[in-house]
Amino acid sequence: MTANPRATDASNRRLRLGMVGGGPGAFIGAVHRIAARLDDRFELVAAALSSNAERARAGARELHIVPERAYGSFSEMAAAEKSRPDRIDAVSIVTPNHLHFAPAKAFLEAGIHVICDKPLTTTVEDALALAEIVRRSGLIFGLTHNYTGYPLVRQAREMIEASELGRIRVVQVEYAQDWLTTPLEQTGQKQAVWRTDPAQSGPAGSLGDIGTHAYNLACFVTGLRCDQLAADVSIFVPGRRLDDNVQMLLRFDGGARGMLWASQVATGNENNLRLRVYGDKAGIATASAKHASRIPSGHPEGYLEAFAQLYADLAEQIAARNAGRAPAPSSLLVPNVKDGVAGVRFISGVLESSRQNSAWVNLPRS
Amino acid sequence: MTANPRATDASNRRLRLGMVGGGPGAFIGAVHRIAARLDDRFELVAAALSSNAERARAGARELHIVPERAYGSFSEMAAAEKSRPDRIDAVSIVTPNHLHFAPAKAFLEAGIHVICDKPLTTTVEDALALAEIVRRSGLIFGLTHNYTGYPLVRQAREMIEASELGRIRVVQVEYAQDWLTTPLEQTGQKQAVWRTDPAQSGPAGSLGDIGTHAYNLACFVTGLRCDQLAADVSIFVPGRRLDDNVQMLLRFDGGARGMLWASQVATGNENNLRLRVYGDKAGIATASAKHASRIPSGHPEGYLEAFAQLYADLAEQIAARNAGRAPAPSSLLVPNVKDGVAGVRFISGVLESSRQNSAWVNLPRS
Amino acid sequence: MTANPRATDASNRRLRLGMVGGGPGAFIGAVHRIAARLDDRFELVAAALSSNAERARAGARELHIVPERAYGSFSEMAAAEKSRPDRIDAVSIVTPNHLHFAPAKAFLEAGIHVICDKPLTTTVEDALALAEIVRRSGLIFGLTHNYTGYPLVRQAREMIEASELGRIRVVQVEYAQDWLTTPLEQTGQKQAVWRTDPAQSGPAGSLGDIGTHAYNLACFVTGLRCDQLAADVSIFVPGRRLDDNVQMLLRFDGGARGMLWASQVATGNENNLRLRVYGDKAGIATASAKHASRIPSGHPEGYLEAFAQLYADLAEQIAARNAGRAPAPSSLLVPNVKDGVAGVRFISGVLESSRQNSAWVNLPRS
Amino acid sequence: MTANPRATDASNRRLRLGMVGGGPGAFIGAVHRIAARLDDRFELVAAALSSNAERARAGARELHIVPERAYGSFSEMAAAEKSRPDRIDAVSIVTPNHLHFAPAKAFLEAGIHVICDKPLTTTVEDALALAEIVRRSGLIFGLTHNYTGYPLVRQAREMIEASELGRIRVVQVEYAQDWLTTPLEQTGQKQAVWRTDPAQSGPAGSLGDIGTHAYNLACFVTGLRCDQLAADVSIFVPGRRLDDNVQMLLRFDGGARGMLWASQVATGNENNLRLRVYGDKAGIATASAKHASRIPSGHPEGYLEAFAQLYADLAEQIAARNAGRAPAPSSLLVPNVKDGVAGVRFISGVLESSRQNSAWVNLPRS
Repeated sequence: MTANPRATDASNRRLRLGMVGGGPGAFIGAVHRIAARLDDRFELVAAALSSNAERARAGARELHIVPERAYGSFSEMAAAEKSRPDRIDAVSIVTPNHLHFAPAKAFLEAGIHVICDKPLTTTVEDALALAEIVRRSGLIFGLTHNYTGYPLVRQAREMIEASELGRIRVVQVEYAQDWLTTPLEQTGQKQAVWRTDPAQSGPAGSLGDIGTHAYNLACFVTGLRCDQLAADVSIFVPGRRLDDNVQMLLRFDGGARGMLWASQVATGNENNLRLRVYGDKAGIATASAKHASRIPSGHPEGYLEAFAQLYADLAEQIAARNAGRAPAPSSLLVPNVKDGVAGVRFISGVLESSRQNSAWVNLPRS
Repeated sequence: MTANPRATDASNRRLRLGMVGGGPGAFIGAVHRIAARLDDRFELVAAALSSNAERARAGARELHIVPERAYGSFSEMAAAEKSRPDRIDAVSIVTPNHLHFAPAKAFLEAGIHVICDKPLTTTVEDALALAEIVRRSGLIFGLTHNYTGYPLVRQAREMIEASELGRIRVVQVEYAQDWLTTPLEQTGQKQAVWRTDPAQSGPAGSLGDIGTHAYNLACFVTGLRCDQLAADVSIFVPGRRLDDNVQMLLRFDGGARGMLWASQVATGNENNLRLRVYGDKAGIATASAKHASRIPSGHPEGYLEAFAQLYADLAEQIAARNAGRAPAPSSLLVPNVKDGVAGVRFISGVLESSRQNSAWVNLPRS
Repeated sequence: MTANPRATDASNRRLRLGMVGGGPGAFIGAVHRIAARLDDRFELVAAALSSNAERARAGARELHIVPERAYGSFSEMAAAEKSRPDRIDAVSIVTPNHLHFAPAKAFLEAGIHVICDKPLTTTVEDALALAEIVRRSGLIFGLTHNYTGYPLVRQAREMIEASELGRIRVVQVEYAQDWLTTPLEQTGQKQAVWRTDPAQSGPAGSLGDIGTHAYNLACFVTGLRCDQLAADVSIFVPGRRLDDNVQMLLRFDGGARGMLWASQVATGNENNLRLRVYGDKAGIATASAKHASRIPSGHPEGYLEAFAQLYADLAEQIAARNAGRAPAPSSLLVPNVKDGVAGVRFISGVLESSRQNSAWVNLPRS
Repeated sequence: MTANPRATDASNRRLRLGMVGGGPGAFIGAVHRIAARLDDRFELVAAALSSNAERARAGARELHIVPERAYGSFSEMAAAEKSRPDRIDAVSIVTPNHLHFAPAKAFLEAGIHVICDKPLTTTVEDALALAEIVRRSGLIFGLTHNYTGYPLVRQAREMIEASELGRIRVVQVEYAQDWLTTPLEQTGQKQAVWRTDPAQSGPAGSLGDIGTHAYNLACFVTGLRCDQLAADVSIFVPGRRLDDNVQMLLRFDGGARGMLWASQVATGNENNLRLRVYGDKAGIATASAKHASRIPSGHPEGYLEAFAQLYADLAEQIAARNAGRAPAPSSLLVPNVKDGVAGVRFISGVLESSRQNSAWVNLPRS
């Protein structure tokens, strides 16, 4: 039993954090704020919480942000922060998918590190453009595929890296939810509305929302690249405009074969993400637990702590950059813009395969 | 708490049972014998336990079978039993797959009911021919897809029949074993040898051995017909001649989508068969338990009792036939020759899809 | 994967089995018959199934027993079988507790091996007298504490014998059922009536019915002797005449401390028997699985097979005796009359402690 | 899916929190700080982190506390804070057990609300004296029995309050750990040293450390009062000075019977707290999950969030007091000084019963 070293690391000042999106009623914004606060490495000092300027400012007040840094828009915020001596070290972008690209670009161009929710963008073109901006800027870019922050998931990755499973043969991954079993979006429920709206979510529904998590998890843990996929994309709920169930076959480099299932109509599944990997020496299974309190029903225990792990990793990267030292190697495990590009290519590939009646589609190397 | 009514039903004499295959060293033969004995409705009185006549007779002696009914071959047995006044009521065929067709045909033509292990045959042509023979004979033909005998499985089927799940949307089924993770057949292990030998097993390995169970279970429980499949069939163990891992997408009539995974190289899985079905009202999951004693490692608890259920159902069908009355409706749930044909068509379809790089293949209606 | 050697052991004829008690409607009789049949080592040839002579004979006919061996009472049966050349090798006594002693004595005096349900008797005096009769007779006496027949339980015992847990410190055992949560006996339910009737069950209710199983399991697995107990015995259901919940502290030789809980009013527990043992090197937990079909709701999977294990062990002991050879050592694990005496002393000690307001009571060495 | 209302409640300023104990190396201090931070209702502004003044000040600097409020002792801190206009609203006392009483008294007398770790004190006299000080002061006193903060636990309490279980009959509670299976204290491990030292822990080892949690949980969930207990207290590890295993029988008002087991030598149990309650209508079981990251191995998922729940409840009580309004009723569920007295009386009763060879001991009403 030892204390958490991070909590008593005095060598770092608290980093100044800004937030774009995540105002009142936005679930993921609160999660990011708690995660940033958990290890006390970040302090939220600036925000553009809503695309509605008035709501943005009111929300910021509730979060104890001083009025001059309660911005009405992300562009105003990027411009103003850029010129402050105490400008934010990093910004968290927690808007719907279609609003990731523009603020990410704006803050990178303002010289500010970016922490962005997934999926990276709604098109492959935007994803590649953003990757190029990150490359040129030399700034840190974290993508919050939060499942990579679970201790169990990192341990699984280490086991496979250490060849404890031998050569990987089979990869089975699934992410099953049931909250869209009915046409919830027609009731006006905010989370459902934007996630089923092509204008806000892009061309993918459950695929972008949770399929990308499953895909990222499989790649993160196995260290394998997916070369080909053959997918069947379904919309089960009448009137819905984006997919609510996707099933696919996967082929990985080195010959491993896999299956991926993501569903938001799997009745009785609150939020079950499960990965199983079988090698010629051993196999592993990861599954998430139940019953948390500050987060939506069904999200796994440890959810906040896994998110906090990503924030802690990014704090370490930023603090190391500020101090001119190398970051702790484990902090580099946090997904970055390349993982973001891979995720958007995955979405694009799945939709392409489905258009071709589940033909195998090649995934280009990032 | 009530006693089992079957055990005290005095209106029926014990039925006379014969067995083809299942001599010493054959696992499934012992399972069938225990299953037949469990409810005391059958008595084993005749057998051709091996294709080696001497071993066949020696084995029969060990099973307390009188010498005159310890036959050296199935054809000898069919001929002799046909003309006995106390001839067997039914025969159990528990040989490797390539030896199902000929004895089934012989006993049907001798007027004897048949209980046959799965898969029905190794080719679609044989399957159709056998179905025609059964049709003409009017005899009872049971196919021992033993998982259909589990109380839990039957309950799941009833729930779906009663529309408790609503319209079915997603069907996920998997059967994972690990006993062929290494080239066990190269050690001469008997079970591994015949199951990986195309001459004895036919063109399918894990697909025929366990994939058919998964497929049958999915169809049995949901009552849905599978219209199309797109499959990826793999051989992971170097030198193996038949598949040891199959993954596929399924499309059912009515629009439900599914996935099926069967593997004998899923390290760490002794014997895990799992079906999940999600409708627009509810979902169900079935999974098999662990730790039995008289059966191979990993086979689920209740395995013997589920097998016994099929024998009890067939005893009921035969006794009803003998008595000129209608059988109990539940006894008709035991799979029959049509299910056998569907299983062989499934195997054929999977192999065809795999040959076409996982293209969708239509499954003809039986 | 290997066939069960017992099923193909030709060196032994089927042993002739008789049964006392266990007529239609008696749950445990059917279980014993299936268990005896499972490995085909016993054939049921004689019975006195009921204390009502007419019902006894009718029941025997249903079980295919020839009329001359369908006896009207156990004493008639003991006398008749004693003088037959083909007399039964062993008798199973599956009557309510108060009817164990007299038939056991009668058959032992007729020179016939005895298989008896637990608890051995309803008084310590009878238990000791029976043990003395067994000793003098030199006959085999098996007590069907069926949980000792589970592979998992035997493996746990072996682990402890092999010092894999180190010195045992803590033993926690519990057996929780809920079928007597309501005054079921007042509805006339047969199983409930005799189990809550002091005249048939003796002075202990849940204590004798399931507490003795828990106690026997703890002693069987750990190999420890219980020296002292301090017990609190309760009747929760108004009007009930025997205990339905017992809780106690245990002290074992060597210093281990334990707790035992047995309850038939533990709402939501169909039939949960659980043992946990902690040593200074390691700990183990055993728990029973769910969902069987031929047995009362909640009894664990493998129940029939565990019972069958005891019958197989006793068949081995009897066959070895008949052949003048030593029995397989593992067959001696089946509980015997000494375990029966220990069980009755346990019951007596618990009731004594409870009368003294849970004072510690010493258990005499058997 | 809704955002957490607490995080967006603008009506309250952040409360000022102080801490006594919990310096570097102290596990529970970091937990309290994270818990206080999670919902952003408290800000840590003052501390006396260690009884060593120099270490206390160094630790405070690491936690971003301004030097003038980095105190060298709790008495200095109580005196100084009392006279500040921005004095702390509340103080968290996270010292070893023997150092709860004095600082709690000092801060209460300084007019500051107290949040204190359990057990309240090391003697019943101190507990009663503290309860009297709280009563006279009218201040808020929270006792961090953190398990009462779990959503599942609160739900269980509500179910029982709503009579969903009917009249309670049986209460089984256990808390099993294994970290003291070996004489860890002899290696100098800090957590083990003070917990096994009578001078720091008081007269109870595992009993005070985890037995009180189990007892509190059972009383919290059932709403029952324990009237009597009969206990067996053991020291299994040679050379240890305080108990490492306790087992007891419990009698509750209204007639329910229970058992409690707390052990720190239950090999293989990292941290398993489990409560089962059975009434005449239904039963419930609560169990804690696994795998957290910022806390000692084995502590359940949700541990931080449950602690945070208590802090959120106390923030609500304090904010309501400050605003002159009634607190939200659910915030009153957090254990208070009366629960602390009951816990110390429980410890005292257990030790008394054990001294009397497990005789039943009455627990006085608080």
